[in-house]
Amino acid sequence: MASAPVTLTALADFPLVEPGDDLASLIIDGLRRTDIVPRSRDVIVLAQKVVSKAEGRYVDLRDVTPSAEARKLAEEAGKDARMVELILAESREVVKLRAGVLIVEHRLGYVMANAGIDQSNIDHPDGNERALLLPEDPDASCARLKAQLDAAFGIDLAVVINDSFGRPWRQGVTGVALGAAGIPALLNLIGAPDLFGRSMRVTEIAVADEIAAAASLVMGQTDAGKPVVHLRGLQWDAPARPAADLLRPKQQDMFR
Amino acid sequence: MASAPVTLTALADFPLVEPGDDLASLIIDGLRRTDIVPRSRDVIVLAQKVVSKAEGRYVDLRDVTPSAEARKLAEEAGKDARMVELILAESREVVKLRAGVLIVEHRLGYVMANAGIDQSNIDHPDGNERALLLPEDPDASCARLKAQLDAAFGIDLAVVINDSFGRPWRQGVTGVALGAAGIPALLNLIGAPDLFGRSMRVTEIAVADEIAAAASLVMGQTDAGKPVVHLRGLQWDAPARPAADLLRPKQQDMFR
Repeated sequence: MASAPVTLTALADFPLVEPGDDLASLIIDGLRRTDIVPRSRDVIVLAQKVVSKAEGRYVDLRDVTPSAEARKLAEEAGKDARMVELILAESREVVKLRAGVLIVEHRLGYVMANAGIDQSNIDHPDGNERALLLPEDPDASCARLKAQLDAAFGIDLAVVINDSFGRPWRQGVTGVALGAAGIPALLNLIGAPDLFGRSMRVTEIAVADEIAAAASLVMGQTDAGKPVVHLRGLQWDAPARPAADLLRPKQQDMFR
Repeated sequence: MASAPVTLTALADFPLVEPGDDLASLIIDGLRRTDIVPRSRDVIVLAQKVVSKAEGRYVDLRDVTPSAEARKLAEEAGKDARMVELILAESREVVKLRAGVLIVEHRLGYVMANAGIDQSNIDHPDGNERALLLPEDPDASCARLKAQLDAAFGIDLAVVINDSFGRPWRQGVTGVALGAAGIPALLNLIGAPDLFGRSMRVTEIAVADEIAAAASLVMGQTDAGKPVVHLRGLQWDAPARPAADLLRPKQQDMFR
């Protein structure tokens, strides 16, 4: 991914996104407003929340009836049983539970807190009752947006959807890629020679996660209108790979 | 960390670093060569290897006599017993062992593979016999470099040392901060209001890790002369915190 200056710019005055909004059009307007004429190999990074909102992934908690299992886990974790019901419905399994947080394997394979379901920064006309699920399929969302943007500009863009994850062993959240299109999300450097011509050991770079983290720096963290970031300056010559390739199979994981 | 365009630029033609080299002078020369006049709040990110090399953290494996414990673990992991001896000497405890890799808690608290000890991209006049340890104290190295650079330019810079870490659950390595000075490595957003005025849940952002990951994108991964990156455009109003604040205490860790 060697590169001359890499620039990250938040699209100016990105509007609040509503279910059914055409994200590609909003991005095109945002680029114009920010005086950016996109080029091939630019990367558009979107915060998960705006994609989820455009895709209408809201659930009204008043419509959720918790199962017995959800009620039991909710009591252990000190959480709303309806939220736990949603988390379980979005997950393959519970990896770990502690006060206030359920670490699960999401149905798409992400190991994450609360299946990525969010109650903050959600418009709440009826109080505190709406939750927002992750996009149905973030890699597919990226591919769709890439196709729309590529067609609009006649170029070859990349698109990444990011979210903030906690990690074992280290404090604080960092940006992580939920979806990617048009870029090698995982870059395989196995056997690439080092400076002294010796073969390197196995090295795979989680490029899309590094892009996601870089974009997080620019997005800020209070969702205050900077959910889309334009990145320019990366170069690569490997084929595109989706963010699904960043998921470590459970049987290869030392910490499951 | 809201911010107008963030720019990352690798310093041009950074020389190979030798023990005893004055890194601050090399950085000053590199900035000049790259036509960058640094400003307050710019961040200089250094790859761990150049700091370790400047600090002379080489060990000749021929001088290492493995203990019985090192020999036993080396056999289990299929590694050079002298490397395992070095890893154990740099570590508080072994967290996990598998073929080819020891996950340890480094003496400074990082949970990482092989205590960060590297045999690739090390000049090896005598064959394959030199290993390179992490810097003695990366936060202190950052503080020292910051003081030297601040004095040279009469400004208030930030300095980060990064390295590439593997993670549980996800494939590929990402840039992580080993040391930091002049920046809030961990930014505490507990209670910051969201867009709708509701108080956010506890959120801490691992800002220095996101900076480290962003810089990794620009450094490339074959150590081909881009070990120092200049970052401009971040804003913050929290006090500086060292990278040590990114380490989660063992007793608070769900995955130890």
